[in-house]
Amino acid sequence: MRRSEAFIKTQKETPADADSINASLLTRAGFVQKQMAGVYALLPLGLRVYKKIENIVREELDSTGANELLMNVLQPKELWEETNRWKEIEEVMYKVGPDIGLAPTHEEQVTDIVRGKISSYKDLPLSLYQFQVKFRNEPRAKSGLLRGREFLMKDMYSFHATEEDFEKYYQRIIITYKKIFSRIGLETKLVAASGGIFSKYSHEFQVICPTGEDTVYVCEKCDFAENIEIAKVKDGGKCSKCNSRIREEKSIEVANIFPLKDKFSSKMKAKVLDAEGKENNMIMGCYGIGMTRVMATIVEMFNDVRGIIWPDSVAPYKVNLISLDKNKEADKIYKDLSDANIEVLYDDRDGVSAGEKFADADLIGCPHRIIISEKSLAAGGAEISKRQDPKKFEIVPLDKILDKVK
Amino acid sequence: MRRSEAFIKTQKETPADADSINASLLTRAGFVQKQMAGVYALLPLGLRVYKKIENIVREELDSTGANELLMNVLQPKELWEETNRWKEIEEVMYKVGPDIGLAPTHEEQVTDIVRGKISSYKDLPLSLYQFQVKFRNEPRAKSGLLRGREFLMKDMYSFHATEEDFEKYYQRIIITYKKIFSRIGLETKLVAASGGIFSKYSHEFQVICPTGEDTVYVCEKCDFAENIEIAKVKDGGKCSKCNSRIREEKSIEVANIFPLKDKFSSKMKAKVLDAEGKENNMIMGCYGIGMTRVMATIVEMFNDVRGIIWPDSVAPYKVNLISLDKNKEADKIYKDLSDANIEVLYDDRDGVSAGEKFADADLIGCPHRIIISEKSLAAGGAEISKRQDPKKFEIVPLDKILDKVK
Repeated sequence: MRRSEAFIKTQKETPADADSINASLLTRAGFVQKQMAGVYALLPLGLRVYKKIENIVREELDSTGANELLMNVLQPKELWEETNRWKEIEEVMYKVGPDIGLAPTHEEQVTDIVRGKISSYKDLPLSLYQFQVKFRNEPRAKSGLLRGREFLMKDMYSFHATEEDFEKYYQRIIITYKKIFSRIGLETKLVAASGGIFSKYSHEFQVICPTGEDTVYVCEKCDFAENIEIAKVKDGGKCSKCNSRIREEKSIEVANIFPLKDKFSSKMKAKVLDAEGKENNMIMGCYGIGMTRVMATIVEMFNDVRGIIWPDSVAPYKVNLISLDKNKEADKIYKDLSDANIEVLYDDRDGVSAGEKFADADLIGCPHRIIISEKSLAAGGAEISKRQDPKKFEIVPLDKILDKVK
Repeated sequence: MRRSEAFIKTQKETPADADSINASLLTRAGFVQKQMAGVYALLPLGLRVYKKIENIVREELDSTGANELLMNVLQPKELWEETNRWKEIEEVMYKVGPDIGLAPTHEEQVTDIVRGKISSYKDLPLSLYQFQVKFRNEPRAKSGLLRGREFLMKDMYSFHATEEDFEKYYQRIIITYKKIFSRIGLETKLVAASGGIFSKYSHEFQVICPTGEDTVYVCEKCDFAENIEIAKVKDGGKCSKCNSRIREEKSIEVANIFPLKDKFSSKMKAKVLDAEGKENNMIMGCYGIGMTRVMATIVEMFNDVRGIIWPDSVAPYKVNLISLDKNKEADKIYKDLSDANIEVLYDDRDGVSAGEKFADADLIGCPHRIIISEKSLAAGGAEISKRQDPKKFEIVPLDKILDKVK
């Protein structure tokens, strides 16, 4: 994309109401715009990153045999009264008049869909997921895109004929989620947590991060980790699994999974016949990923004083090509890279200083940078560097750039 | 996709509350599920079709230089008071408490974003679009997905420094929309209409269809067409452009475009400096496509007593491969076609009769059908036919299927 044709507007000043690194950097770099407390628009750069994350999640979920669908936002009261949640979570759920709510989650609707279409164990297991905008009446919307009132979520629901089959899928999703976050560039801890109103227990995927609002206790050696809500250990205590030291950490919850078992299916009469012709409640699990929160977490984790540093897999563009002194060579490299399907943000702007172009490149944070100027051409080609350290560049002949960047 | 692993459940009976062909067929064929009046979930098949349509629209809009973004649903009262629409459209806009509305459209927010970032004519023209769920408090939600309370829309907004530049883009979008609908398989009439609360006049893209709820007057010879709201002609009258006969037709509005001019920019103080340093209101246009309505219109237009007949470009799968008598040959063809990136719905179900499989294929409506059975193998290969006429099949040797279907 040519910068001169893109809707990318950066700003030098931190917005007065930015309450977090992610809100400040994503706003300044032109990825998002805050519309009201806890409500952000994704501008073109932000939408690109969101879609990169979405595609990774979709690929990995599809590989587990899950089916994508898209449920609705407006929810009828009757449905939520079946599980008593119309009352139970009334503080969280926005209401439109007395009988319609805005979905904060979709257990009721997905169970309604499945009970109407599935009646035999032969049709199970079944796993359905969606990417969707969700709404939660957060009295204290804060931390930028980390805790919003309107946000994008991936929610998945699985249905099984037996507890054993459910357990197998639940374990499979733990592995799938680990892979998703590793592809996104985030190291996650699987943390045991309470199930809240959903289930006896749950698991969270937490990213250890000093600016996080959660507190977890993690073992320095093994994979033991507990949320403070349920932890029996303390900072400096001993791990109950391997006896090593336990450390207290701040963290951000990017995903959570719940063994719903028959909590919803029993109340909503979602049953299947087994091989003997006996009716049983379906056994369910639900699996969330906070999509816009993941984007914000990446920014909290990967930044420096100059701006964001996107991992390759989710960067809005892989390469930021900067043309100084307006040259034909940069036009040609832009064309070559685009033809090779490499995503390039090409700063072709006229009348903008080199300093401004570099500052924007640092702020926006594309992982690879190519500068073509009279100086670089005189030195033998283009300056190529990484976002982490733009000063550590190498001169690459123009006809070798494609190989270098691929 | 193997049918045995897909969440596709068809039903024989028309739902009691189906009020239209699209509601009946899309529900029976397992594309959508109604959750409440005017509110439908897109099941996996429906989501596939929606995404096909979305990709066509995105490709064509991107080719005009438009930038995609994603604005939010929750809207603050203050913003809509700037244009007085908090009052003006209060019947249409769902409210969450006294100060938040659910966006039925996004003129206010997009103008707010642009006025905060653009101040010079050099940054114009600019065109921003999104695919988003929209909400309208329709007292008489009806006609299935044609008139919903919650629906998917593509809305685009363009900003210009001069009226001339705006006019040029408006005309370009007319051509772009014609191309979009032609790719989708819908023939549209460009119909002059009133601008309602938006503008003096507008243009609608109408699909002539006996089940439509709009009435338009079209010339039998030239491209003259007017909505009944503003028409000065009558059925059987004379065309003011070419003197030919005017015909009255029922139709479905799939898109509309409005010359907003400075209606929003003047009220919201969205200005740019021109080359002489003078401040002018930006000149705006807005351009909608009812995405879920387009899906419903395709079904209204292309169906027969047995089910839906999808055009190739938006079909959930290009090919419906049906295996009878459970054979290895069908497995192999499924693999070959999938490896060649041809989208195949493979009916590999066990214990389901040939009649049931054929009825499902007719109902779901993939454009191409391949049947592999003991009978077809004995005759020399597979039976290949089109959805329109499954009885007119030809026998194609197994090793020639890929060439035939590509």
